[in-house]
Amino acid sequence: MGSETLVLTHDMMVEGTHFLPTQDMADVAWKLVAVNLSDLAAKGAEPLGVLLGYALGDDDARFAEGLREVCEAFDVPLLGGDTVRGSGPRSFGLTALGRATHTPVPDRRGAYVGDAIYVTGTLGAAMLGFEAVRDGTGADSEAYRRPRPLIAEGRALAPLVSAMMDVSDGLLLDCWRMARASHATFLLDSETFPVADPARLNECVRWGDDYQLLFTASPDTALPVAATRIGTVMEEDIGALWVDSHALTPLDGLGYQH
Amino acid sequence: MGSETLVLTHDMMVEGTHFLPTQDMADVAWKLVAVNLSDLAAKGAEPLGVLLGYALGDDDARFAEGLREVCEAFDVPLLGGDTVRGSGPRSFGLTALGRATHTPVPDRRGAYVGDAIYVTGTLGAAMLGFEAVRDGTGADSEAYRRPRPLIAEGRALAPLVSAMMDVSDGLLLDCWRMARASHATFLLDSETFPVADPARLNECVRWGDDYQLLFTASPDTALPVAATRIGTVMEEDIGALWVDSHALTPLDGLGYQH
Repeated sequence: MGSETLVLTHDMMVEGTHFLPTQDMADVAWKLVAVNLSDLAAKGAEPLGVLLGYALGDDDARFAEGLREVCEAFDVPLLGGDTVRGSGPRSFGLTALGRATHTPVPDRRGAYVGDAIYVTGTLGAAMLGFEAVRDGTGADSEAYRRPRPLIAEGRALAPLVSAMMDVSDGLLLDCWRMARASHATFLLDSETFPVADPARLNECVRWGDDYQLLFTASPDTALPVAATRIGTVMEEDIGALWVDSHALTPLDGLGYQH
Repeated sequence: MGSETLVLTHDMMVEGTHFLPTQDMADVAWKLVAVNLSDLAAKGAEPLGVLLGYALGDDDARFAEGLREVCEAFDVPLLGGDTVRGSGPRSFGLTALGRATHTPVPDRRGAYVGDAIYVTGTLGAAMLGFEAVRDGTGADSEAYRRPRPLIAEGRALAPLVSAMMDVSDGLLLDCWRMARASHATFLLDSETFPVADPARLNECVRWGDDYQLLFTASPDTALPVAATRIGTVMEEDIGALWVDSHALTPLDGLGYQH
């Protein structure tokens, strides 16, 4: 668009699939916006606004409250959208628009042989939060209910990375996808994985919903954000993903498959 | 965005509300895209692309076929989107993006006292088409199944109109909305209404789905597209909408209320 590069994303959430019918609709609204902003963050884009497709229900006031909170928290306006009445499980759609702050816009295809592989934050926190909500334990569930898109981190990283994406479907699955898209092999060291519960490491790196940033960069790049190095990009000829000394594929159950 | 003005719209369609469960999904896909492009047309915008939120089902191939047809017919790319699995009535969302070809972008707020009120095409054709589909009569149903957004017409009109919108919820209701938004009274002459079935004039001007363009312009403007003059914009002081010698409000059942 003129001198600017527009970044667009559209994600849906369906009752029973992406959220529990018993959940606070304010949390659902927050997450719907946050997961789309996370896609913008992984592109280093500055959010410009969102459009909402909303199925009306009994708890519209709570949804509206969560929507207001998330839009204020990340300074993004609700530009428009549509509301509908329907029966059965409700579904919501959100389109987020952003302005690229760096071109070329980072994507999952650019990992180079010899690059270091990094991930931000901690994996599995959303899984523990989901279990707390599902089981009503009262444990901290914020990582599941109210994920925070890493917008500032994505912008800071965009000029420095060779490839970047957000981890929405599980670290291993998203590593496999990035490796495939980059025609490379990702060699990962499981001892380095930053997980919320080391006793459940295998689950933490297969569960989605953490919305951390996965990226590759030259190993001598000084990183402007905290991140953990989890491996190295290798030549493609030995398969897309190795963890320790095991070659893995999606058939091994790497994450959340839609 | 830089030197350009972006126009955005998002409309949803829900099974049972916006389409019949028995309908060909290729027609549903066509209509989902067409109704959003119609919103762009009413803004004089050139379509740039669409994002789709799609609930998977048993007839995805037919939907994909209709999507391909409508995107080719109006030369608009599918830029991305999301697919989900769910149960119950399916719902679809579409975001359309366009580039304004004229600024200020026309909207419903600009009708001036003394302007002529025009509508393109024929109203009620979609109603007759709906009845043909519902009743399986075999009569022509294309106006209902495959509406054609008036993109070229909207672009040609954008520099000339004082207000413009597409007629999606019935001529009378949309006239009332434009009059209210413009702080004016629309005085209409029912004898001039261009309807598909004069014997059912009252229904034809209350049924939605025709996606014609409703606009106001100075009466001495030479129009670049065929349109019918249906009335005149008056001072606001006598209510928003008069048809012949009757003041009407949405309480009188002017059209399709969501």
